[in-house]
Amino acid sequence: MSATTPSAPPHATRGDCLAADAADPLRGFRDRFLLPDGVVYLDGNSLGALPAGAEERAREVVAEEWGRGLIRSWNTAGWFDLPGRLGDKLASLLGGNPGEAVVTDTTSLNLFKALAAAIRIQQRDRPGRRVIVSERDNFPTDVYIAEGIADFLNSVAEETGTRYEVRLVDASLSLRDALAPGDAAVVSLSHVNYRTGSMWDMDAVTAQAHDAGALMVWDLAHSAGAVPVDLNGADADFAVGCTYKYLNGGPGSPAFIWVHARHQDRFWQPLAGWWSHAAPFAMAESYRPAGDIRRFLCGTQPVTSLALVETGLDITLEADQAALRAKSLALTDLFVRLVEQRCAAHPLELVTPREHARRGSHVSFRHPEGYAVMSALIARGVIGDYREPEVLRFGVTPLYTGYADVWDAVEALRDILDSRAWDAPEHRERNAVT
Amino acid sequence: MSATTPSAPPHATRGDCLAADAADPLRGFRDRFLLPDGVVYLDGNSLGALPAGAEERAREVVAEEWGRGLIRSWNTAGWFDLPGRLGDKLASLLGGNPGEAVVTDTTSLNLFKALAAAIRIQQRDRPGRRVIVSERDNFPTDVYIAEGIADFLNSVAEETGTRYEVRLVDASLSLRDALAPGDAAVVSLSHVNYRTGSMWDMDAVTAQAHDAGALMVWDLAHSAGAVPVDLNGADADFAVGCTYKYLNGGPGSPAFIWVHARHQDRFWQPLAGWWSHAAPFAMAESYRPAGDIRRFLCGTQPVTSLALVETGLDITLEADQAALRAKSLALTDLFVRLVEQRCAAHPLELVTPREHARRGSHVSFRHPEGYAVMSALIARGVIGDYREPEVLRFGVTPLYTGYADVWDAVEALRDILDSRAWDAPEHRERNAVT
Repeated sequence: MSATTPSAPPHATRGDCLAADAADPLRGFRDRFLLPDGVVYLDGNSLGALPAGAEERAREVVAEEWGRGLIRSWNTAGWFDLPGRLGDKLASLLGGNPGEAVVTDTTSLNLFKALAAAIRIQQRDRPGRRVIVSERDNFPTDVYIAEGIADFLNSVAEETGTRYEVRLVDASLSLRDALAPGDAAVVSLSHVNYRTGSMWDMDAVTAQAHDAGALMVWDLAHSAGAVPVDLNGADADFAVGCTYKYLNGGPGSPAFIWVHARHQDRFWQPLAGWWSHAAPFAMAESYRPAGDIRRFLCGTQPVTSLALVETGLDITLEADQAALRAKSLALTDLFVRLVEQRCAAHPLELVTPREHARRGSHVSFRHPEGYAVMSALIARGVIGDYREPEVLRFGVTPLYTGYADVWDAVEALRDILDSRAWDAPEHRERNAVT
Repeated sequence: MSATTPSAPPHATRGDCLAADAADPLRGFRDRFLLPDGVVYLDGNSLGALPAGAEERAREVVAEEWGRGLIRSWNTAGWFDLPGRLGDKLASLLGGNPGEAVVTDTTSLNLFKALAAAIRIQQRDRPGRRVIVSERDNFPTDVYIAEGIADFLNSVAEETGTRYEVRLVDASLSLRDALAPGDAAVVSLSHVNYRTGSMWDMDAVTAQAHDAGALMVWDLAHSAGAVPVDLNGADADFAVGCTYKYLNGGPGSPAFIWVHARHQDRFWQPLAGWWSHAAPFAMAESYRPAGDIRRFLCGTQPVTSLALVETGLDITLEADQAALRAKSLALTDLFVRLVEQRCAAHPLELVTPREHARRGSHVSFRHPEGYAVMSALIARGVIGDYREPEVLRFGVTPLYTGYADVWDAVEALRDILDSRAWDAPEHRERNAVT
């Protein structure tokens, strides 16, 4: 551990942390979630906690809307309007306008729609641009989806000698250099990195992409509900993200796509299912896309999972977003400082930026035995998660994470490291999902 | 009404129908579903009824697996394995083998994967084939998805002078004629037509497609759980379908895709999300597709809706499939006969084939005021649905539909037609979803 704090910090004891919780203006939101006893939950960046109202909402959807309303509920319970209604709420959180977002499908699929639409637009506006710029450290599905599009188009393009290409920014290639050839159709980045928690400057990077003639797609999976986002302020073109992390929508709850109004009626996105048709129930013989954000829908949505999105989303919308951000930074600051004070004897390497403007809502440390250390933490009820390679992730969700949670988590970490409790067969054995 | 029955039929009175229900060997399955009082539900072909165990399963997923298990439930509650586990069960119902199906995403998206994979295979096996054959009367999304693929590939192919094409079989073009030029890459048909209830001969049509050098994709949306299907027996290549109709999986519950083992490891499907990666949690830098059916997954699934699929599916798997088919045909025969006897004075035109081998599990009639007639029926608690143009659909689900239900539905229809109860403003006004 390389750094120590220069002066006596706030929250230097567990009592200080409890006092900070008691004084927290957001403290009331914790009671809106049902967290199990004996658990410090620091994995809301992977799956958010259960809102208190979600069980009743699920019962209502299943027993009343499905069971009693049956097919009529597409109208009477508003199922048909859910993607747009939830999209409007989400847009209001992300600096978007009503009619600019829908909640539907998965982040991977919505990214496919966004990248494909961007490519179609550029085929017209700036022909010959066939490069999708992303980053090597992006969440894997973001790179894979770009590769899937390139592979599919190249199956035809090869005959012409032209090829679509995925160009990855990494240690050897800066974004500036990746854009320099002037052949980028679209830049696709995760606003907050899933592993390191580092955050791009959305305004500056969007402007940089536009200056290079590229369209900009943001993946907000680790941003929505976690950090301030202003999509229209940044003049972004497309954004996607999920609702099951900081928005507490439930396991695998449907994702979202936001499309700037200027792009909504320009080109088909290839996943041209009937929900994206201008008149879905006219049963028309050929495709005519909706002129609005509905063009980015595809097929019938999983209503039970979709309806549960609203329970979590509404809680986030009640909170003051600046207060959430301030508390998130205070919690991650505290986490870093306590680890550096109390675990200084151990080979933990902070991989999350210290600078507030470059940090999302989780902190990550590398440790050579990261997997086993996280397994030992989880066995003690401190739930973070592990990501290859060697990275321990700890997410804070300011709606329900408290200062004492951070204290307790770092104490458990310290004890596990000091006692080498991680060095046991049951902690080294890998599960399918980590 | 053109035809009358030649001799005294069975079930000529409501008492006969009640007796048939009492003697029905499948009658016990009706108690496994919670149907509201005062409703005759004949729309299981659009949204199946609520299984008795679904509310408790939803509570368990939300309160226990999500609320208490939190992120751990991906392992401990088997969430990660759900698409494959449910796919294996579904395959057993459809003449498939374990490892040939997954439950995931929507029918539209799975059709995109199947058509795209078929095109990629043919690019290698039979280059130059660029035609997707479908039918004009197919469910619209099936045609739109094919158009979406063609549009996307043509955005590149135009430069070479080659074009992908969607060719629709209709009154002016037989399937034989559509295949005659020898340029079809893939044939994509709905096994049972959503509107008319007519059913293709899967064995014969699949052989016809193969003889013409095309791959065969079946949409089983109105077949799975409704009529016998033997995908491997027919030597089909791909199949897709939904779980929220006859399989009673809940509103918008995730769909399925079945892929013959010979095609699973050949080419990428373009929706190359991380769940289709050979090692999803290795977070590898580039895409390497799974060598098995997981290649047809994409992103994280809506677990609550997905888990509910199992409740309905398990009930269907308990039933004798031949008995279900026999009862389905007896019910649709009865429906047709009663309408022809009791509504003969009215301009109802049967659009469903009389021949058993060509009929699915619903019956449809055209009526010039079809929308208003169905609205009046629904107001009386007889729930079928309406499809453009002028078509009244009545689905029977032999797990829970009884003979007396059919009697009561036809009596309501007769009374509404005799009394012109449909001729009222509230029945003529259109809703978003019909």
